[in-house]
Amino acid sequence: MKINRYEDISQIEREAKRDYIDRHSAFVHCAASAVKGEKFKVKIQVGEEYKHPDDFDHYISWVQLWDGEKMLAQTTLSAGTMGSAPSQVEVDLYIVPTKSMKLMAHAFCTKHGLWQSNEVAVEVAE
Amino acid sequence: MKINRYEDISQIEREAKRDYIDRHSAFVHCAASAVKGEKFKVKIQVGEEYKHPDDFDHYISWVQLWDGEKMLAQTTLSAGTMGSAPSQVEVDLYIVPTKSMKLMAHAFCTKHGLWQSNEVAVEVAE
Amino acid sequence: MKINRYEDISQIEREAKRDYIDRHSAFVHCAASAVKGEKFKVKIQVGEEYKHPDDFDHYISWVQLWDGEKMLAQTTLSAGTMGSAPSQVEVDLYIVPTKSMKLMAHAFCTKHGLWQSNEVAVEVAE
Amino acid sequence: MKINRYEDISQIEREAKRDYIDRHSAFVHCAASAVKGEKFKVKIQVGEEYKHPDDFDHYISWVQLWDGEKMLAQTTLSAGTMGSAPSQVEVDLYIVPTKSMKLMAHAFCTKHGLWQSNEVAVEVAE
Repeated sequence: MKINRYEDISQIEREAKRDYIDRHSAFVHCAASAVKGEKFKVKIQVGEEYKHPDDFDHYISWVQLWDGEKMLAQTTLSAGTMGSAPSQVEVDLYIVPTKSMKLMAHAFCTKHGLWQSNEVAVEVAE
Repeated sequence: MKINRYEDISQIEREAKRDYIDRHSAFVHCAASAVKGEKFKVKIQVGEEYKHPDDFDHYISWVQLWDGEKMLAQTTLSAGTMGSAPSQVEVDLYIVPTKSMKLMAHAFCTKHGLWQSNEVAVEVAE
Repeated sequence: MKINRYEDISQIEREAKRDYIDRHSAFVHCAASAVKGEKFKVKIQVGEEYKHPDDFDHYISWVQLWDGEKMLAQTTLSAGTMGSAPSQVEVDLYIVPTKSMKLMAHAFCTKHGLWQSNEVAVEVAE
Repeated sequence: MKINRYEDISQIEREAKRDYIDRHSAFVHCAASAVKGEKFKVKIQVGEEYKHPDDFDHYISWVQLWDGEKMLAQTTLSAGTMGSAPSQVEVDLYIVPTKSMKLMAHAFCTKHGLWQSNEVAVEVAE
């Protein structure tokens, strides 16, 4: 089983390939530092420049947020939740960190498998 | 199996009972109207005035967002994601409506079962 | 939000309605008694006499097993897992009881909502 | 994020390490061949010779069944479902194959991360 890892699409020449990779890529967006014991918002977004279909037989059915080897949360979507039209899946998770984190997201496309984001380091101050 | 429905705690006299009910209650927060085909943010929050523990043997392990009889999304949390301290579980889901909705949330506490929010009507304009 | 509760289809005259109800009904099949601390098999099946479609836009996407107010397990299925043809979703969960149980299953159809099984009492002997 | 892959514990000398690896290892048990369009039973089991704790802060919280890059099903367990004692998580999934498969399981331990089984080839005859 293949896990597709993040690729920088600015390095990819062919438009169709840039589109394919970007629309499946998971991104973790959050501040670079957090305060221990306080709520911290983490956005998982799938696709940055391109949109992914939300067809019944082809959609992003779940995303997971990981901190290193620990899964923090998983959001499962029903087909049609994104309006049955191309879109970028987006979920804001609110977590409460107790120590510095290495956040990473997984996104699962029902046709094209599992996609892994880059790791995002978050400093957590007392 | 009992489903706990929303109760207005301002009508409840005893503090411990207000706390118990509020910290388990799911709330759907969103605008009253949306535009068809455009992303629409829906916050699910558990607890409004009181906080729920995030203990390994007692935490909010999932929330679901429903539109009438259709489940739109489910977020599952690991114990500890809220910092192993009392907190209010909070998730922002971005959905793309195609018609008017009646949104409702479920929240599941590993000790005190299933809690159902009030229904929130959202007008969707073309 | 409506939860459809089990109905005995032998009491229903119209074939189409019997089919509709039965193919969505969740059943808990297990022994009537268990031994404390030993593995105990519980089958959740959706439909007894009729089959449910497994179409991309219409399938049984999850089942849950409950003991009273406590959720024991949830199985989520991808569309197509039942061969994209009418079938009866079936999962065997192995649980280890520590006291007598009142088992109940939920099944979610992406078109026709949530269905609740009858409750099944299981005596657990030391 | 590390994915722990299957290791043959007969090659490992130290008992504690054999125990650690085996009790986290996911296994796919099924027949080597299936008939197209007919129900096919697939057991996912975690651990073969050793047992994994079912403690609130340390348990197997989910398993997934994959066919190549496609996820077929995911079962999420609540802590305590295995009796709060060491055990081997076990789920039987019934799938309906339409072509030959390469089955693989993932298991997630809340303390020790993601574990991937060996791949099991299943021939599917018309």
